[in-house]
Amino acid sequence: MSRSHNQPCPVAASLNQLGDMWTLLIVREALNGATRFGDFQRNTGIAKTMLSDRLDQMVRDGLLERHDIGQRGVRHEYRLTRKGRALVPVMAAISQWGNAWLFGEGQEPIALVHRETGEPIAPLRPSDAQGQSFEWRDVRMVPGPGAAPALKTRFASIPPNQE
Amino acid sequence: MSRSHNQPCPVAASLNQLGDMWTLLIVREALNGATRFGDFQRNTGIAKTMLSDRLDQMVRDGLLERHDIGQRGVRHEYRLTRKGRALVPVMAAISQWGNAWLFGEGQEPIALVHRETGEPIAPLRPSDAQGQSFEWRDVRMVPGPGAAPALKTRFASIPPNQE
Repeated sequence: MSRSHNQPCPVAASLNQLGDMWTLLIVREALNGATRFGDFQRNTGIAKTMLSDRLDQMVRDGLLERHDIGQRGVRHEYRLTRKGRALVPVMAAISQWGNAWLFGEGQEPIALVHRETGEPIAPLRPSDAQGQSFEWRDVRMVPGPGAAPALKTRFASIPPNQE
Repeated sequence: MSRSHNQPCPVAASLNQLGDMWTLLIVREALNGATRFGDFQRNTGIAKTMLSDRLDQMVRDGLLERHDIGQRGVRHEYRLTRKGRALVPVMAAISQWGNAWLFGEGQEPIALVHRETGEPIAPLRPSDAQGQSFEWRDVRMVPGPGAAPALKTRFASIPPNQE
């Protein structure tokens, strides 16, 4: 995977670790309980050499931890780190988008549900620190405390996104 | 971009349209008001031929609409469709993950805030249809109404994700 985004932006920086299509499918599998090379390979259909590269990269990036389990024929288990597990909201947002726009109501191949009640989760909504939710159109991106001066200048010149 | 995921899964299907790292950066720019080839090129640093390919693909995928504005030297504007704009929650989830895990508190290059109050949005949380929120660890993936039989079988064999 080329790592070509060096912009000070959390989207760009995240895509350096997630941008490869396979990475998020491996996360999907790990969230669903896969731990072994063969599980990942079977469930994603990824070629073995590429899977091997991706797992190595994900270990280097701190998304997966490799544990040597020393069993004959199965040497390693891969487990999501906290950083990897923190991708659940990303997976959920992508799943909801895909279900809504690529499959449609009643055709969803995968549903996200509450573990105990089995009820589907609602479309994600933004909320403030007090838990008050509002609409996505009320959200905008602004420079954060770590923004480089060039980014602040650029944002100053962009009109607020109208809708 | 290769389109190699033919699994009946909203993550896999979404990654076919989003998996290329550049696609989400183009969405980021469009959300921030970019409409013209030069805007996208300048703000992402993407090579011109690749940008041209990506914009064409995103128009074919229904993420962007191309409008001929007939001005000398600037022939087209690109605007997000409803489907493209529906990626805001995906961008928000990725931004929050990147800010938290790749930059850290106080170093965030970009913040997501309420348009009017300027207050940062809280980390996304799942909620049910009544707006009651719960924890991400209480969410699991299950086969949806459009799941193929093989997927149902596979899920039946996977133990619930423990944590």
